[in-house]
Amino acid sequence: MLRARCSVQWLLFGVLLALHAGAAEPVDPLPSWNDGAAKQAISKFVEQATTAGSPGFVQPAERIATFDNDGTLWSEQPVYFQLAFALARVKALAPQHPEWKTKQPFQAVLAGDLKTALGGGKEALLQIIAATHAGMTTEEFSASVSEWAATAKHPRTGRRYTEMVYQPMLELLRYLRSQGFKTFIVSGGGIEFMRPWVEAVYGIPPEQVVGSSGVTRFEMRPSGPVLVKEAKLEFIDDGPGKPVGINHFIGRRPVFAFGNSDGDQQMLQWTAAGPGLRFAGIVHHTDAEREWAYDRQSSIGKLDKALDEALAKKWVIADMKRDWKRIYPFDK
Amino acid sequence: MLRARCSVQWLLFGVLLALHAGAAEPVDPLPSWNDGAAKQAISKFVEQATTAGSPGFVQPAERIATFDNDGTLWSEQPVYFQLAFALARVKALAPQHPEWKTKQPFQAVLAGDLKTALGGGKEALLQIIAATHAGMTTEEFSASVSEWAATAKHPRTGRRYTEMVYQPMLELLRYLRSQGFKTFIVSGGGIEFMRPWVEAVYGIPPEQVVGSSGVTRFEMRPSGPVLVKEAKLEFIDDGPGKPVGINHFIGRRPVFAFGNSDGDQQMLQWTAAGPGLRFAGIVHHTDAEREWAYDRQSSIGKLDKALDEALAKKWVIADMKRDWKRIYPFDK
Repeated sequence: MLRARCSVQWLLFGVLLALHAGAAEPVDPLPSWNDGAAKQAISKFVEQATTAGSPGFVQPAERIATFDNDGTLWSEQPVYFQLAFALARVKALAPQHPEWKTKQPFQAVLAGDLKTALGGGKEALLQIIAATHAGMTTEEFSASVSEWAATAKHPRTGRRYTEMVYQPMLELLRYLRSQGFKTFIVSGGGIEFMRPWVEAVYGIPPEQVVGSSGVTRFEMRPSGPVLVKEAKLEFIDDGPGKPVGINHFIGRRPVFAFGNSDGDQQMLQWTAAGPGLRFAGIVHHTDAEREWAYDRQSSIGKLDKALDEALAKKWVIADMKRDWKRIYPFDK
Repeated sequence: MLRARCSVQWLLFGVLLALHAGAAEPVDPLPSWNDGAAKQAISKFVEQATTAGSPGFVQPAERIATFDNDGTLWSEQPVYFQLAFALARVKALAPQHPEWKTKQPFQAVLAGDLKTALGGGKEALLQIIAATHAGMTTEEFSASVSEWAATAKHPRTGRRYTEMVYQPMLELLRYLRSQGFKTFIVSGGGIEFMRPWVEAVYGIPPEQVVGSSGVTRFEMRPSGPVLVKEAKLEFIDDGPGKPVGINHFIGRRPVFAFGNSDGDQQMLQWTAAGPGLRFAGIVHHTDAEREWAYDRQSSIGKLDKALDEALAKKWVIADMKRDWKRIYPFDK
């Protein structure tokens, strides 16, 4: 009886296996992408990169994929979200700074008059950044970012900022990782502004974030060692700074890069110029209804020269309106 | 017949499995470590860190282990190996620089007179570094390091420098990784000097290397984009620079750190001061016969204040002579 059961079970198992293999639909790793040139280019790249013996095969260790953040992984309108954070922090810190009531640009920020506040140009912006990003320990800053991310709401959608990430890009990140790619953020935004939440939101660990930074100082206090953030810029990870930052932090040239603005042009050039199979992609903001539409004339996320180069060199353009079924995870 | 074979095979398989499980000796992951306090402390730390429910349990994502390089993972006598590289490069580049025949410190380097060459102090050293580490692309520099690593021989052992790595530390790196730790190098040495060979030698990928660096510049040439190394120091990853570098590159506080000199003291303090289970370790060079013996009085790898702190705080001390069965992989 035992013998009979054994062979029947194996037969049954074999039959089920065969049926299952025949019946199973291949799962689409990019369900929020419309079928079109962009999706096809991604699929083709990944297939070639991961097929041993293919002329485009990329060794697992070299599967480095870099993504800009603002406008590529999450929205960046009506102001960069890090600026929204800084303005919110000015308001939160105001009770400890009675002098701000009569001091620009803080007075204007507190009055909700962004135009006046930022009318002071770079100097005003640096004052706001210094007051909200420096003079505290790295752990205090991280806590202030986490609190903001958990509570602040975007003025247009009423959603938390970390919800305003692009569902198609979340799928792309996950897809690449499932195929042995290591995904990095390479952003003009502050490295310490991103690290507290990127792991939960994008599945990218803090050690795979490249960004702009300020000087940090080691200090031994009676309570123990701390790192103190100073009000001095150290590195701007934008434009030609992006390949420099990639070389500095990662030490390998990516085979895959995605951006959305002229600030990403050199990262895309650097990525595309390496030997073997390459992927350079641009998110084009074309959907005024579901997100925003802007490119050559925009002061935020200006896409002009990089668009010309993308068109000339046939880089992949993800046209939001045309290529994305859904924009945000909360979209129906 | 088919039925009978099926059940007999399963029976046999079960018996073999049981025999195997009963007979197997646990494999020692650290065979080059003598049984003693250091080895026991490592084993105990790893066991606690990886046992779910243990008060010392460390979430896999937080299993960050940082290692100094010079004197901790490979030797650093009679001169830092990067200096040996620089001196060899001066000789290799001399035909393109006839002016060096009469110009210090190059003249002395070419005559093999290290004492005179380095007698010029910091300025002389910077001139040597600038001539051998700058004014070329990152790829040219990387190629020059690889060539040196593949051919140069250490004056005392006659071995390649990358063979003079510590077998017990190679085992420790591998053991930690097998237990879900991410291993990083955090060295005062040049980040681009280490990256070409660390993956093959230590199993640590380039993107997990933190080190000192010079300024790099993006340049678009007719042949394509390049990164050019400039003769300007950017960051010194030593002493208080180590926790700063860890924060900058990794963005998490390690739970495990190993060093060997006063230059590692702040990294060890920073690591040890975090919450939960912590490991701070020091390699003590006590073996003049198999390696070198030096500590408080040494100009290279000086271990004085950090040794006092290690003794006071009961950090783990790996005493080379006492704790290591083998020093190098090529030792019998």
